[in-house]
Amino acid sequence: MRDIDEFSITQAVIEANRTGNARLVTIMESLVRHLHEVAREVRLTEEEWFQGIRFLTEAGQMCDDKRQEFILLSDTLGLSTLVTALNNRKPQGCTEATVFGPFYVEDSPLVDNGGDIANGAHGTLCFVSGSVHGLDGKPVAGAELAVWQSDDEGLYDVQRPDATDHQARARLRTDTEGGFHFRSILAVPYPIPHDGPVGRMLEALGRHPWRPAHLHFKIEATGYERLITHIFRNEDDYLDSDAVFGVRSTLIADWTAHPPGVAPDGTRMDQPYYTLHHDFVLNPKPAAAPAAAEQGESA
Amino acid sequence: MRDIDEFSITQAVIEANRTGNARLVTIMESLVRHLHEVAREVRLTEEEWFQGIRFLTEAGQMCDDKRQEFILLSDTLGLSTLVTALNNRKPQGCTEATVFGPFYVEDSPLVDNGGDIANGAHGTLCFVSGSVHGLDGKPVAGAELAVWQSDDEGLYDVQRPDATDHQARARLRTDTEGGFHFRSILAVPYPIPHDGPVGRMLEALGRHPWRPAHLHFKIEATGYERLITHIFRNEDDYLDSDAVFGVRSTLIADWTAHPPGVAPDGTRMDQPYYTLHHDFVLNPKPAAAPAAAEQGESA
Ligand SMILES: [Fe+2]
Ligand SMILES: [Fe+2]
Repeated sequence: MRDIDEFSITQAVIEANRTGNARLVTIMESLVRHLHEVAREVRLTEEEWFQGIRFLTEAGQMCDDKRQEFILLSDTLGLSTLVTALNNRKPQGCTEATVFGPFYVEDSPLVDNGGDIANGAHGTLCFVSGSVHGLDGKPVAGAELAVWQSDDEGLYDVQRPDATDHQARARLRTDTEGGFHFRSILAVPYPIPHDGPVGRMLEALGRHPWRPAHLHFKIEATGYERLITHIFRNEDDYLDSDAVFGVRSTLIADWTAHPPGVAPDGTRMDQPYYTLHHDFVLNPKPAAAPAAAEQGESA
Repeated sequence: MRDIDEFSITQAVIEANRTGNARLVTIMESLVRHLHEVAREVRLTEEEWFQGIRFLTEAGQMCDDKRQEFILLSDTLGLSTLVTALNNRKPQGCTEATVFGPFYVEDSPLVDNGGDIANGAHGTLCFVSGSVHGLDGKPVAGAELAVWQSDDEGLYDVQRPDATDHQARARLRTDTEGGFHFRSILAVPYPIPHDGPVGRMLEALGRHPWRPAHLHFKIEATGYERLITHIFRNEDDYLDSDAVFGVRSTLIADWTAHPPGVAPDGTRMDQPYYTLHHDFVLNPKPAAAPAAAEQGESA
């Protein structure tokens, strides 16, 4: 500890950390080793180190209950996609998971099937329907879907300082056949919030902040793994350059344009509108461990 | 970009970053590669990822003009020591550099040699003297020294909410023989601020937050590399477990205890006091590049 140099420092930190919580020790050993390797590989200067400190500080100071700059950072560095992929390996045939994003809100209003989730959010009307099945093809009745999306200006309700109510987000339950349907607005591409340090980082890296048009879904049902995913709109300009690396080809769907007429729910439409239909397939949870194994663990 | 998985995500991010500022692209490529490697190595769970997001958010929200939680994080992970070592390789015989720490303040008061830098900070009186030389042995006259330290409760002035003036910190200039001397208080061990996320991290890792007693010095002189270093107090209990990995054996010095009597500056002391003498050796700056080379660079 008294003769640390640019090489021995790494082992010194790892050894100092050795007596803590075992899982944290494992994570910190990997993190310290790799962070140090970055500094050595690029021969980080003291000024660059200080710019890093300032960046993290500004990112932290940007955060409040409606803005999460560190999630944006994780998203734009592909870390969110990586952690999602590591923790959501599913058999072929299941709907793929993708990034959660920073705009989810707990306890959005529970609406009945057929309800209007836009709740005043501006945009072209869109009728969304679909179903939830298990990998074995069985319909999943009573699954809880949370849906959230931006309005036609690309803003979520939480990004509008004057918003007093949930808009373009809601929870629904699937019916006895696993079906769901609701009224909303057309999803449009939008830039992630880029008026902070992450926006400046993207600019310095020559990257744009745009995401292709999408709907967010979180689907939970007893006996199945939770699914957090998006549906992306086909032919969007940003499908190949999503700022947060969320697109999966299996998650791209066609929104169908319709001229004025009678909408799926019988509403007479004076304006053109869209429909979207999408079916989700959930992965069954592994069967509970047998009692013997549980006892073994607690022994 | 449409079929990213837990392996291909890394290359996808690196390729997206490719058109920015060249140095930033280099740093980010290394950072992204290594951060992703950490997530894969430890199979980071979604809950652990979210704990990381929360940790960074709380660290950022802890920062203000007097508290820098990210510097504490960098210090306790050994990153500050590593960056210091990478950027301050010096020939044998030069005084070694060590970490800057979070308590430096620009433009502390300039005091004359012999002055009292404690300025009311509590502690046992201590008379500090020393010299600044170049590696060739030549005294460095007119060097500017910034000195800073904690009081006998282990607190820097910036950590006291009621402090209205600089205490236990000042700037001095070396005399024509390269000498300096001032009055201050005895350095004591102190814990780094540990009432925030970094303190909780240390606790979870089974680490204490203490640093061995030390004085901070920043020394600048025309023609020499800037030196940022500490002098550590010999026989301190924490010399082998400094929370920020700052100790170097060449930076450990003896503080000499004296009974009441006449102090080095002629003051009659009713109380015991200490003296410390330390000599610093600066590394000459490389000679300026010849004019021809400069023209070559700008061509
Ligand atoms: Fe979104
Ligand atoms: Fe200190």
